[in-house]
Amino acid sequence: MAEETIASVLVGETAGVLPLVCPPKPGDRLEDVDTPALILDLDAFEDNLRSMQALAESHGVALRPHGKAHKCPEIALQQVSLGACGICCQKVSEVVPFVQAGLTDILISNEVVGRQKLELLARLASRAKLTVCVDHPDALTALSAALDAQHSAVDVLVEVDIGQKRCGVQTHAQAVALADLAIRLPNVRFKGVQAYHGGVQHKRSFEQRQRAVLKGIRAAAGFVDALRRAGYACEVVTGGGTGSALFDAASGVFTELQPGSYAFMDGDYGAMEWGEVTALRHALFLWATVVSTPAPGRVVLDVGLKSTTAESGLPQVVGQPGLRCTALNDEHCIVAVDEPRASPALGEKLRLIPGHCDPTFNLHNEVVAVRKGVVEAVWPISARGLSR
Amino acid sequence: MAEETIASVLVGETAGVLPLVCPPKPGDRLEDVDTPALILDLDAFEDNLRSMQALAESHGVALRPHGKAHKCPEIALQQVSLGACGICCQKVSEVVPFVQAGLTDILISNEVVGRQKLELLARLASRAKLTVCVDHPDALTALSAALDAQHSAVDVLVEVDIGQKRCGVQTHAQAVALADLAIRLPNVRFKGVQAYHGGVQHKRSFEQRQRAVLKGIRAAAGFVDALRRAGYACEVVTGGGTGSALFDAASGVFTELQPGSYAFMDGDYGAMEWGEVTALRHALFLWATVVSTPAPGRVVLDVGLKSTTAESGLPQVVGQPGLRCTALNDEHCIVAVDEPRASPALGEKLRLIPGHCDPTFNLHNEVVAVRKGVVEAVWPISARGLSR
Repeated sequence: MAEETIASVLVGETAGVLPLVCPPKPGDRLEDVDTPALILDLDAFEDNLRSMQALAESHGVALRPHGKAHKCPEIALQQVSLGACGICCQKVSEVVPFVQAGLTDILISNEVVGRQKLELLARLASRAKLTVCVDHPDALTALSAALDAQHSAVDVLVEVDIGQKRCGVQTHAQAVALADLAIRLPNVRFKGVQAYHGGVQHKRSFEQRQRAVLKGIRAAAGFVDALRRAGYACEVVTGGGTGSALFDAASGVFTELQPGSYAFMDGDYGAMEWGEVTALRHALFLWATVVSTPAPGRVVLDVGLKSTTAESGLPQVVGQPGLRCTALNDEHCIVAVDEPRASPALGEKLRLIPGHCDPTFNLHNEVVAVRKGVVEAVWPISARGLSR
Repeated sequence: MAEETIASVLVGETAGVLPLVCPPKPGDRLEDVDTPALILDLDAFEDNLRSMQALAESHGVALRPHGKAHKCPEIALQQVSLGACGICCQKVSEVVPFVQAGLTDILISNEVVGRQKLELLARLASRAKLTVCVDHPDALTALSAALDAQHSAVDVLVEVDIGQKRCGVQTHAQAVALADLAIRLPNVRFKGVQAYHGGVQHKRSFEQRQRAVLKGIRAAAGFVDALRRAGYACEVVTGGGTGSALFDAASGVFTELQPGSYAFMDGDYGAMEWGEVTALRHALFLWATVVSTPAPGRVVLDVGLKSTTAESGLPQVVGQPGLRCTALNDEHCIVAVDEPRASPALGEKLRLIPGHCDPTFNLHNEVVAVRKGVVEAVWPISARGLSR
């Protein structure tokens, strides 16, 4: 299949002789948007962007939202236009569409290992200010060599493990050794540390989460102190997510926050205790149609594991407490009707809150931006599938 | 972002001024293929296609493999070239790239509800022989009307519920009423029934699976008999999956099998008891790189929930019993090293068996077809993301 044809199918326009009918377009009413579709409520989304920006600014820290959450350059541009200092990406190939869209300051908040990835990174580094994480001397040496071949340079952060037990150096000595090496190698500039703990983001109890986050912040401070004692000031201490941002912002340790889900919220974050602090709203929805009403007490929707994911819980039907998702198959969502009067009709469309926003964005080719029930824009999720 | 640019990024070729380096191409060695990548072992894949085709032919039933499993027209063409009567799709938009690639006989093994979907279906029906499932009179009436507007026609199957409790009519009387209606309406030709039970496919014990499948087959036979008594011969009785195919083929009830995973196998199907019957082999793999070796006993790979899914279990490392996936994050797989001597080095590449093949294909833009360690082709997964 030729490139042009693939693109045409993906963006829902004329594909050779077989048009995909009725792709959503600005001005359409939400009720007329075909399903499954990923819907962004712009009013809630913009409120969320402003809330997190205000939190960061009130503590004098930078906000660098995570592009991995949405993989959508248009969303990143809006985040930056409201004050974000740049964005994070998790993969090198993911950076490409963001740079093409005009983003100029990107942190790859992850280890980059492998010849092709380093070559691409080195090329991208001549077009945008890039920062990269390292947790191994061999990776840092290979990074420096790849940049040398392209006559480009990047900032580097030592990733430190503050309790997640995923990537990151384990000891202060390892962190200092990497800073030592970065200082000696060409094309890489030591800038500080990344300290991220994914595991603490999703603790539901406010107090348990606070306790776990503060423990991680103390570990991060320990790494920063050790580097300072070795002569390396950390200009950047970056980390944090939606669940920890409040504590990270106020910590005096972090200079920069990297939340992603805050712009959208999802079932997992929505189920958490937020104390008195949150003004974050559900902004991301799946738009689904009832395609079967086979028996009393059960209807079936046209969204499945190819439109959202289940690892953080099943989707939730919005505004209809009598409807409860009980299973997510590849292409179907089975809904129990606990309140017979609430049973939706064949063809009725429902809004669902996805369990986990990041992998849900990664399933869709575009997100339909809606305000007060009317489509305002359709944004390509251009980094979808770019996982290298 | 312009269409052309999106396509270029997706197929990994020159994207404006920012080339994605080194997309895999025929002749490359597997070791040189960048990760994450979805890898198809052609020898195992072709063996699997022949095994299932032989099973179907030995019982005189048709094989109609499910395109939802792979969403890849090139794979469908190979299935048909080995004797498959056509393919199944699960969604109308999914049909488009298969028809464009030359597939001429497609069963949409699902309910189709909604104006845009019916319009597209009616257009596609003038370009390929389509069959559609129905389980509600209103859906059938709307289908007939949409086809009328395009002067096209389709075959219809009444979907019957044989125990899955998802879609499908519940009673013999409902099945007969739908056949009655189909006979009266223009543009739809009643052909028989679809009887699929996803829940029985994955029972791990051979005997428990057999018992559950046979119960479903008896239910299907009951619907077929009721229709026959009402004057409606079922020319087509279609259903079955990889886990039930052996019993369905021999049942004397089914005329057609719809397995999908058989071509690839996955961790879920691989963990099942197959008795003496299976010659099916793991043909589908994730190709991953070790990007962090942070501590003894732990390495981290560059595949996560955006390259495979976890609802049917974590991926398994091939050929290295000392390595065990313990967590799948959005972009990382954490691997416990139970056997210290087996600990892979930074940058080493590993093969993983995905837990569930269907949603894994739906995450990738292309599958890299490999024979004896050398890339033979790179096939676009053209129906990826086409879920409407």
